[in-house]
Amino acid sequence: MHDKLFTPGPTEVRAELLNELASPQIHHRTEEFRKLYDELQIYLKKLLFTENPVFLFTSSSTGAMEAAVTNGVKKRCLCLVNGAFSQRWYQIAQQNGVPCDRVDVEWNKAIKPELVDEKLSSGKYDAVTMVFNETSTGMMNPLKEVGEVIKQYDDVLFLVDSVSAMAGTEIRVDEWGIDMCLAGLQKAFALPAGLAVASVSDRLLARAEEVEKRSYYFNLLNMYKYHQRSQTLSTPAIPHLFALRRQLKDIIDIEGIENRFKRHREMAHYVQEWALEYFDIYPEKGYWSQTVTCILNTRDISIPDLNKELVNKYHMRIANGYGDLKGKAFRIGHMGDWTLADIRGLLVTINDILSLK
Amino acid sequence: MHDKLFTPGPTEVRAELLNELASPQIHHRTEEFRKLYDELQIYLKKLLFTENPVFLFTSSSTGAMEAAVTNGVKKRCLCLVNGAFSQRWYQIAQQNGVPCDRVDVEWNKAIKPELVDEKLSSGKYDAVTMVFNETSTGMMNPLKEVGEVIKQYDDVLFLVDSVSAMAGTEIRVDEWGIDMCLAGLQKAFALPAGLAVASVSDRLLARAEEVEKRSYYFNLLNMYKYHQRSQTLSTPAIPHLFALRRQLKDIIDIEGIENRFKRHREMAHYVQEWALEYFDIYPEKGYWSQTVTCILNTRDISIPDLNKELVNKYHMRIANGYGDLKGKAFRIGHMGDWTLADIRGLLVTINDILSLK
Repeated sequence: MHDKLFTPGPTEVRAELLNELASPQIHHRTEEFRKLYDELQIYLKKLLFTENPVFLFTSSSTGAMEAAVTNGVKKRCLCLVNGAFSQRWYQIAQQNGVPCDRVDVEWNKAIKPELVDEKLSSGKYDAVTMVFNETSTGMMNPLKEVGEVIKQYDDVLFLVDSVSAMAGTEIRVDEWGIDMCLAGLQKAFALPAGLAVASVSDRLLARAEEVEKRSYYFNLLNMYKYHQRSQTLSTPAIPHLFALRRQLKDIIDIEGIENRFKRHREMAHYVQEWALEYFDIYPEKGYWSQTVTCILNTRDISIPDLNKELVNKYHMRIANGYGDLKGKAFRIGHMGDWTLADIRGLLVTINDILSLK
Repeated sequence: MHDKLFTPGPTEVRAELLNELASPQIHHRTEEFRKLYDELQIYLKKLLFTENPVFLFTSSSTGAMEAAVTNGVKKRCLCLVNGAFSQRWYQIAQQNGVPCDRVDVEWNKAIKPELVDEKLSSGKYDAVTMVFNETSTGMMNPLKEVGEVIKQYDDVLFLVDSVSAMAGTEIRVDEWGIDMCLAGLQKAFALPAGLAVASVSDRLLARAEEVEKRSYYFNLLNMYKYHQRSQTLSTPAIPHLFALRRQLKDIIDIEGIENRFKRHREMAHYVQEWALEYFDIYPEKGYWSQTVTCILNTRDISIPDLNKELVNKYHMRIANGYGDLKGKAFRIGHMGDWTLADIRGLLVTINDILSLK
């Protein structure tokens, strides 16, 4: 029996989707491929409430983050940092030689719109990076509200990592003014890692025209050229595309987007109630993630021991705190295709192991 | 029934390997993953006759080509161009702002060691890119011989794209002085696209230390840091790793490397004989590829019509000429897990369609 992943990504993949990966390969320069590509476009646009094209990256989300800052910044980038992945985005910008500043907020505090407004009023920046849902801390930053602020600055692009949120919670790309909205498949999509998707606005493509090129593989203009032919720049991860098509159809045509988001809210609420009863929650109230809860280890339990017993006896795996939070917090992923019943089963089992009543 | 791919990549993937893709997901920061990673190292090193680590890129081969020139060039790169993919490597270097020159050879002519020697004697270069097996032209450049020349220049790195050759023909990375030897899985590995592998020498890592960083995702030093922990920099394409492990075991422990190369030579020879009887071969004699044959359309047949009939009636697909060679040539991939019997079946069928006796 394999270990069921209640980690905040990779998360569990249903057998139906795993089987899609095993479909015979097709050639990526054929009509058959173009049909697949076009179908993916239709569904991804629906999922993200956008008219923008959604590019397919054969890479992890980190690759799409690199594409965002290497294509989207001409003047200077403001990196909003309140967790490990927002910090990584700053490092990515730096290593690529992209001019950037970071503004740091305590990791248990959300990025507030006022802070963004204050920083942008300097006129120094033409792009902002923000992680919507910090997998490292269980923080869900106020995406829509920050988007409202950024909209007031004409030339500032809004680059959003929604890695552990996309397909688990509502993101209205066009309404909220998001120029690039990226995610990997191994989180709320409940698919294996190996492909990232990102909506790309006209404004971002126009910016890419002005920027001195820094990459071929992650060059959005190269990708756009092939997008117009319903193809990818180079040979893509075909197995993932098959599985993604199936999952998007299941999400949109069968479960329904709103139902999926509602299910995620219910799972999140259940875990939060449990966490408040027995432990505490790491991020400030009002900004708890709908897909991953970061639980403060107020009882000073051994998280590795808990995980070991979960894995060995029940074939379930949760995650330790990320980086400096290791030992001080643990994380439960409640995203993708898990149901409330699965989450209940996990938490009752943890109660049993820890003798919580 | 699906179309069997006799294209020069993607190529056909056996059901056993497709099923490996459908294995339940594991978390990439676990002991289970590290074991998988270590096993892959052992087998990949055997395949490439090297002691160098073999990095895993969740990207197409194009991504690994980008990593080669952005990490491996400090002074200036010499790009040896005699086909579409060697030309792409030059473009990749250019778009990344890597100082580089191209030296062009007619696409039906091989890169000769003397040419490389002459160019390197200028002292201008500290890296050379070469495509071992040009998928676009069916040309197999003299890798070993060019390696011998480059060895005589102390500070020059040898960066090799062996995309459609690796796992189909012998490559002795250490003996031939190859600093980076890269390939994607969708060619002679007979696996789906979505992952690339590349051996990386100490010399290349030392060079990367000296180079102004240009990428985070394709930064070899970042990758090396995680390699030392038997992990990847970011979440990798787990399905491909499972399938790669299975295929490497099948290649090395069951078929045997030498038998695999012999099978490829036999298939190549058979296709070459057929091509010479009815058409002609594009590259100059002595440099015909062991994995893909590019056949000159001396009978002026309609290649799309031939492919249409192959696909519709027999569920087999071959490839048109690449780029400017479209219509003037067609390509047959004879690599991966195809056998001589499969190739015979294809060629007899083509004879039948074209009424060749």
